[in-house]
Amino acid sequence: MIKTDILIIGAGPTGLFTVFEAGLLKLKCHLIDALAQPGGQCSEIYPKKPIYDIPAFPEVLAGDLVDNLMEQIKPFEPGFTLGERAETIEKLKDDTFIVTTSKGTKHHAPVVAIAGGLGSFEPRKPPLANISKFEDKGVEYIIRDPEVYRNKRVVIAGGGDSALDWSIFLANVASEVTLVHRRNEFRGALDSVDRVKELKDLGKIRLVTPGEIIQLNGEENLESVLIRKNNEASEEIILEVDHFIPLFGLSPKLGPIADWGLEIEKNAIKVDNSLDYQTNIPGIYAIGDVNTYPGKLKLILCGFHEATLMCQSAYQRIFPDKKYVMKYTTVGGVTGFDGTKKEAPKAVVKAID
Amino acid sequence: MIKTDILIIGAGPTGLFTVFEAGLLKLKCHLIDALAQPGGQCSEIYPKKPIYDIPAFPEVLAGDLVDNLMEQIKPFEPGFTLGERAETIEKLKDDTFIVTTSKGTKHHAPVVAIAGGLGSFEPRKPPLANISKFEDKGVEYIIRDPEVYRNKRVVIAGGGDSALDWSIFLANVASEVTLVHRRNEFRGALDSVDRVKELKDLGKIRLVTPGEIIQLNGEENLESVLIRKNNEASEEIILEVDHFIPLFGLSPKLGPIADWGLEIEKNAIKVDNSLDYQTNIPGIYAIGDVNTYPGKLKLILCGFHEATLMCQSAYQRIFPDKKYVMKYTTVGGVTGFDGTKKEAPKAVVKAID
Ligand SMILES: Cc1cc2nc3c(=O)[nH]c(=O)nc-3n(C[C@H](O)[C@H](O)[C@H](O)COP(=O)(O)OP(=O)(O)OC[C@H]3O[C@@H](n4cnc5c(N)ncnc54)[C@H](O)[C@@H]3O)c2cc1C
Ligand SMILES: Cc1cc2nc3c(=O)[nH]c(=O)nc-3n(C[C@H](O)[C@H](O)[C@H](O)COP(=O)(O)OP(=O)(O)OC[C@H]3O[C@@H](n4cnc5c(N)ncnc54)[C@H](O)[C@@H]3O)c2cc1C
Repeated sequence: MIKTDILIIGAGPTGLFTVFEAGLLKLKCHLIDALAQPGGQCSEIYPKKPIYDIPAFPEVLAGDLVDNLMEQIKPFEPGFTLGERAETIEKLKDDTFIVTTSKGTKHHAPVVAIAGGLGSFEPRKPPLANISKFEDKGVEYIIRDPEVYRNKRVVIAGGGDSALDWSIFLANVASEVTLVHRRNEFRGALDSVDRVKELKDLGKIRLVTPGEIIQLNGEENLESVLIRKNNEASEEIILEVDHFIPLFGLSPKLGPIADWGLEIEKNAIKVDNSLDYQTNIPGIYAIGDVNTYPGKLKLILCGFHEATLMCQSAYQRIFPDKKYVMKYTTVGGVTGFDGTKKEAPKAVVKAID
Repeated sequence: MIKTDILIIGAGPTGLFTVFEAGLLKLKCHLIDALAQPGGQCSEIYPKKPIYDIPAFPEVLAGDLVDNLMEQIKPFEPGFTLGERAETIEKLKDDTFIVTTSKGTKHHAPVVAIAGGLGSFEPRKPPLANISKFEDKGVEYIIRDPEVYRNKRVVIAGGGDSALDWSIFLANVASEVTLVHRRNEFRGALDSVDRVKELKDLGKIRLVTPGEIIQLNGEENLESVLIRKNNEASEEIILEVDHFIPLFGLSPKLGPIADWGLEIEKNAIKVDNSLDYQTNIPGIYAIGDVNTYPGKLKLILCGFHEATLMCQSAYQRIFPDKKYVMKYTTVGGVTGFDGTKKEAPKAVVKAID
């Protein structure tokens, strides 16, 4: 059982910044995310694209924004449960919560902050009858650890950045990489498209376009796939493979959280924006893209503000008898749980003689 | 008469960022500030100190934060009325506003955003009977343009960073610099204290500590000051000077805004935080440190959020019939009023053959 002060569901920018604001209040945080890495939409959908409306950054790449946040929260030593989806919540008699993930990991905390964004990112799956039988037995929708594919025969399907980038990466890891896409045209960064062409010409990537995987075969594990080329039954080929990785994008689903008894409106969680972004269940807050209230904007900078106000309220819930006196970070510095201390150089008081 | 879409009172971080969010909505802004430079508290009180709680900046100097904001809003060409205090507001029949400054400059806009922070910064004045007679005739509380002091005889009073830093700076500009402080000890950056000592030893700064200016003399303009040293009447000296600059700090005063008919609570303006940070007078908003609502935190990041939501509401007020469809900056880019355009590199759609 993982124990913490604030259990954060979702490690997007909002969830990450919550760790910092909680840390200033000496509260510890643990984050759960369905994805393999922190950063939410910024890391998963557009890490290499610039954002222009983060205050005081005329321009920042989404991936760099996440890196900066990770550095900023480092002193507060957040815990992470990654690659697992928060499934169920249980309220104990003492008004604390237990949240259990898809893999059965249990987390216990007096405050739960849902920073789930548009929801937990679920892969779009190809419509193949027996695909679920092979999940984690040769079929993966997200690449968590590229080493799994070392010296394996891999077929990737998809026509976007993920399919291009992973084909390029695995060309030097796997023994065989086949990239199948139902159109001739790929949509992605020019660099990536050009690089795939190079690797194809070098014989390091086999390209099948337009093509489609139409059947998966295997006893226990995946053994081969049936590929139809040019939409012609006459051009069907059987390819022996160890892994099939369909990269058709991720679509967010509010998912299990929708059944936690929270008030939901337009696929988002209603909160009290006139006070502290608390949901209808005391002790459960919702911040960032996942919440809704009159005038709500799904922007990163709004999540930062909501997280900050929410932490003050969480503090009061955890320490009902303490009065928190806010100190500017410039004045009080930042004291990490890891023993580090950042502070402004002090002014001296000194006579001149 | 200066005309604009959103008239912003206060060019602190909140007021500055408002220009950006308004610009995304194609609304033009003009800012009024009592200080000579933009940046509010950050520029005036602690430009060289680090802030640690600006999201995605593990550390940023307050002055750099302001510089970044100025760069970010540049494409939206904000107008500035600096060194003037907004004094009066008048609501016209068509529900627009005219704001007039201490120097009589008039501004006309359909929306007024008060981002006045702790108020307009007013200098703390020494208790000298006839000091107001010499204001702008030899007595200045804020140094706007150091060139005014070239080859002049200057006496500075004060014991903090401003007094130290301006003494150092003017030592190379003025013909004579005298620094008077009522204690022997100065409070400031170690560097500055050491540098003043050096300049004193070089004869470039005359130091009088402990000392006090107790009288100002002159016909029309200031001609001399009477300094009492060591609290001894026997040690009084008359010093002929062209300028007396008391740098005893600035203290913020809500000032004239307090009489504009706005609901005030704890020296701050009450707003509707459940919607758009509007005050009790429709069309007048209050954002950043100057406002208050349940759970309010006087933090820079909160001002950014408030400014963003406020701009959406201002847009609706100005264009009641248009429906604004928000576009992410990453997706839509940023098109400046100056003709510049920033945008993410587009993905290519390209066949590989
Ligand atoms: C292409 C694009 C461009 C954008 N451009 C901008 C821009 O210019 N400016 C701007 O401000 N915003 C922009 N956005 C929006 C911005 O990315 C979001 O506002 C921001 O990511 C929201 O942060 P968050 O932390 O609230 O949620 P998210 O980033 O969505 O993160 C939520 C996380 O929660 C996880 N999660 C959800 N439910 C569960 C569960 N049950 N169990 C485990 N994990 C779960 C998800 O996997 C996800 O990682 C853009 C978005 C996109 C897609
Ligand atoms: C030493 C110190 C350290 C701080 N550290 C931090 C920190 O670590 N983190 C953090 O988030 N915050 C910190 N703050 C607070 C932060 O500086 C404020 O929250 C922030 O400056 C508020 O911005 P603002 O734009 O709302 O107002 P301000 O910065 O106060 O700017 C308001 C401006 O409005 C002008 N104005 C007001 N009335 C009028 C008028 N009638 N006419 C013309 N002009 C007018 C003023 O002259 C001023 O320039 C600190 C403050 C201080 C003093």
